[in-house]
Amino acid sequence: MAKKTHMVICRLSRYLSILQIQRAEDKKYLFSHILASLAHVTPAQVRRDLMMVGANGIPARGYEIANLVRHIEKVLYASHEHRLALVGVGNLGRAILSYLPGRMTNLVLAAAFDTNPAKTGKLLHGVRCFSLDRLDEIVKREAIDIAILTVPAAVAQDVTDRLVQNGIRGLLNFTAVALRVPRKIHVEDLDVVVSLEKIAYLVREKA
Amino acid sequence: MAKKTHMVICRLSRYLSILQIQRAEDKKYLFSHILASLAHVTPAQVRRDLMMVGANGIPARGYEIANLVRHIEKVLYASHEHRLALVGVGNLGRAILSYLPGRMTNLVLAAAFDTNPAKTGKLLHGVRCFSLDRLDEIVKREAIDIAILTVPAAVAQDVTDRLVQNGIRGLLNFTAVALRVPRKIHVEDLDVVVSLEKIAYLVREKA
Repeated sequence: MAKKTHMVICRLSRYLSILQIQRAEDKKYLFSHILASLAHVTPAQVRRDLMMVGANGIPARGYEIANLVRHIEKVLYASHEHRLALVGVGNLGRAILSYLPGRMTNLVLAAAFDTNPAKTGKLLHGVRCFSLDRLDEIVKREAIDIAILTVPAAVAQDVTDRLVQNGIRGLLNFTAVALRVPRKIHVEDLDVVVSLEKIAYLVREKA
Repeated sequence: MAKKTHMVICRLSRYLSILQIQRAEDKKYLFSHILASLAHVTPAQVRRDLMMVGANGIPARGYEIANLVRHIEKVLYASHEHRLALVGVGNLGRAILSYLPGRMTNLVLAAAFDTNPAKTGKLLHGVRCFSLDRLDEIVKREAIDIAILTVPAAVAQDVTDRLVQNGIRGLLNFTAVALRVPRKIHVEDLDVVVSLEKIAYLVREKA
């Protein structure tokens, strides 16, 4: 399920960026086989995905772009806004803080946390940074439901436990730690070293 | 295949970190069910994985840790060294440059590239940064076979084409662009926004 969901979300996100570019170029309609070619998937896959989001094309003109965007956004974002916190403003955390603003719809970066007093109390790329001591209070007050974890490995599990106790439902984990969480919490691991090792393995295998 | 390979590499990387911690604590043997519990997988899965890497346990004492580390390292890293380049030293690129050194075995960060003259010619976290104009020359000279792509989306495909022409076999893609590459090149996409959207979707679905 997880893998299939991931693939669908990836493709829908990709269609959406393509459609937004087409719309910015004042195009009104797009054929599914053109969208397929731009997204590097098969036309049959595009048609299945668009049927799944409830969009219908017109044989002679293709899909109406504005309508398709609405349908995809409805599935991707629902009407629900999610509030995010980033915990650990080191090099990686700071890079993510600088990268995310303006790239997300319905996902709001509501707070950052760090232990370094030089960072707390400041606005970092538009996001207020709080002391880690105030995690419990702020996560509840700001109704944060998703956290990005960029803390050192040694404290990853402790911070995760506190996040979960205060209502976090999903976690993007950049640490190399295998986090223990209750079954209802969704953890997504993004480990750069593991990804590079996987690429190296596949490069050797294909050689 | 890709998904299965990814899961195996993830588990082996995880076992390896656990075994290295155990070894640092002067332990000599480890039972598979203990390793399973530390890695959050089933004991049957651990035994299948360890059989796959060719390691054998002793019923009364478990697996010899030093021996197990050798077997896993052999599968994960082979004897082959891979040489890596990072292209695009913006916020994210710089964070990755600061994060990677010391975390990889047999993967060597041999060069970084950027267009900004303030960065080129310098050592950044121990890695020499070259002008993007010299990409073709340096990738060949340094026998680089894997690249980390942290460039702006607008130039991602152009840079990828040049990397592929000069012998790159694997790519870790941090841009939101769907890269076109020949079939023999392996691309791994690491998109923070897509991962967050997937988590948000699953959080809503479970609610």
